[in-house]
Amino acid sequence: MPDRCTYFVPGPTWVRPAILQELTRPMIGHRSAEFRELFTRINADLKPLFTTTQDTFIVTSSGTGVMQAALENCVARRVLVTTCGAFSERWYQIAESLGLEVDRLDAGWGKAINPDALADHLARHQRTHYDAVTITHNETSTGVTNDVGILAAVIRDAAPDALILADAVSSLGGIPVKFDEWNLDVCLASVQKCIGLPPGITVAAVSQNALDRAKKHPYRGTYFDFLSYVERAKDNSVPSTPSIPHFYALAAQLENIVRAEGLEARFTRHLQMRDLVHKRVQQFGKVAGDPSHASATVTAVEPAMSAEKIRAEMKQRGYTLGGGYGQWKERTFRIGHMGDMPVEDVEAMLDVLGEVARG
Amino acid sequence: MPDRCTYFVPGPTWVRPAILQELTRPMIGHRSAEFRELFTRINADLKPLFTTTQDTFIVTSSGTGVMQAALENCVARRVLVTTCGAFSERWYQIAESLGLEVDRLDAGWGKAINPDALADHLARHQRTHYDAVTITHNETSTGVTNDVGILAAVIRDAAPDALILADAVSSLGGIPVKFDEWNLDVCLASVQKCIGLPPGITVAAVSQNALDRAKKHPYRGTYFDFLSYVERAKDNSVPSTPSIPHFYALAAQLENIVRAEGLEARFTRHLQMRDLVHKRVQQFGKVAGDPSHASATVTAVEPAMSAEKIRAEMKQRGYTLGGGYGQWKERTFRIGHMGDMPVEDVEAMLDVLGEVARG
Repeated sequence: MPDRCTYFVPGPTWVRPAILQELTRPMIGHRSAEFRELFTRINADLKPLFTTTQDTFIVTSSGTGVMQAALENCVARRVLVTTCGAFSERWYQIAESLGLEVDRLDAGWGKAINPDALADHLARHQRTHYDAVTITHNETSTGVTNDVGILAAVIRDAAPDALILADAVSSLGGIPVKFDEWNLDVCLASVQKCIGLPPGITVAAVSQNALDRAKKHPYRGTYFDFLSYVERAKDNSVPSTPSIPHFYALAAQLENIVRAEGLEARFTRHLQMRDLVHKRVQQFGKVAGDPSHASATVTAVEPAMSAEKIRAEMKQRGYTLGGGYGQWKERTFRIGHMGDMPVEDVEAMLDVLGEVARG
Repeated sequence: MPDRCTYFVPGPTWVRPAILQELTRPMIGHRSAEFRELFTRINADLKPLFTTTQDTFIVTSSGTGVMQAALENCVARRVLVTTCGAFSERWYQIAESLGLEVDRLDAGWGKAINPDALADHLARHQRTHYDAVTITHNETSTGVTNDVGILAAVIRDAAPDALILADAVSSLGGIPVKFDEWNLDVCLASVQKCIGLPPGITVAAVSQNALDRAKKHPYRGTYFDFLSYVERAKDNSVPSTPSIPHFYALAAQLENIVRAEGLEARFTRHLQMRDLVHKRVQQFGKVAGDPSHASATVTAVEPAMSAEKIRAEMKQRGYTLGGGYGQWKERTFRIGHMGDMPVEDVEAMLDVLGEVARG
């Protein structure tokens, strides 16, 4: 049954067989008319996905690459990283690996970033100049969604010169992202989460302020230079040879997301999947992350019995669930409910999980 | 006739339909047992491809990304770049974009790097400390192959502390690369040339000296940190989410290259394709690059009539040829004869080209 989803890892997520077939189209060069046509369609559909009229582009790398790119292009000296789990902490690690000065505001594992705590931190550090502040929209390790719009407003108010760098890796395409309305400066997302593609490329939106800041950094390298991506996008291409198969699949998948299913219906389906998961989890355990910020795309589950045993038994029955992550590795397992999964397939999996997890 | 090659661009090259189908396998996580098994097979087969027993790994980026990585990991201050066309010049541009001090030894467009000129340059700059010297094995813009083994021996002799960074983008899998015998420190290759895959990932080999040098650079970033790739490879994985479809296809293609066809037979086929192209080109023009260093994988052709007209007419007849590049954009067109192309398909294309190019 290759058309049925039995794979519920929080990324890479299940990919529909029809979309996988898009990967097999014949090769074209990235300076050809065919590629420019493909790029034009993709880039037009990325705008509604990010809810932006500003610059968007595609990088052939994982999301980690474009997180690094955001720091390389936008931060000369010091950055504030807001953390609430393993993937928000990745900003911290990358900033350190680049030799940047980094401050951290930590909400604690499984909590959302509190806007008052952020306002308070920025007020107490009024004389610290932050080039940027990072926000993780959806923390994949704990299943918690941050209120990016509210947090961004706090930053705009308290630190108007700080650029806002947002990781939407496990939200874009599953939870609304409002790049312009929220006044973000960089927003990036891998495609193997809610966009429902195989991993290999990352999509991004950037503001004029971010580009202006990049212009002031003479040594931002070549591969992750935002200015070169924006410049080449004007000619409907990319600076260096991209993953052509991913471009084919992205074009088809954006057609599906933006027009066939439609963004509103897609967001609603993600909420339905989440609510279904939450309801069933009560039968054998609990949701581990802060329920008031429960993610629409991934749930960390704390069962009464061993999480590892449940995953192993589910694997035997043909279902793959995600493991716990970082501090919660032992206590939890994770269910990815994202991308193109039909609600019925989530329900079918939960029926089996209910049997297994009650021991 | 999707199984026949009609696409003769010097990368991305034609990909066999069976290999394209490998891209469509179901998703797996890059920390799963399935992925580790896949990685183990790939990494074992990369060793004979580079003719090395040292560390090899795979980066999800274009070749340009790993050229930048080589400079970021291995060069603290100053690098010598040897140039003979557009792609060897890319090393220069990337080094400048990173704020490194760069010297250049230029052989002239269409020529190979002269070992005596390199020895002479290094002798005259005895007091210049070069952290590294770059060599481009096969210059894709002109169809010229450099004698990497001889050039590397010159460097080892005259500048023993300089690391040797080699771009094998359009040679690996089509022309022998002897990483250990030539004493290289970094060698990288995109997969969309002689390896016969779609673009999207880059393979690399690194020496212990390169890794020791990287250890001394505290701020080498995260995404292109060679040490993290080598460390993760010990556990048969990669540091961040890779292009899973490319890993499937690479495993199948290395099986084909290393065992089904065999490396020696593959190198011989590339020489046959080159010799066939050279012979036929005499009928309507000439080979543009230095004939004593003619590439086995790409030929820049200088026809008697307009190169652009020939390409347009060939396109009408169903064949795609490569355009001229850089300084030779107007004067030449390029024929890619690399990867999995059958000799018969090259011959069939040349029959048509003969008619077209004689006007």
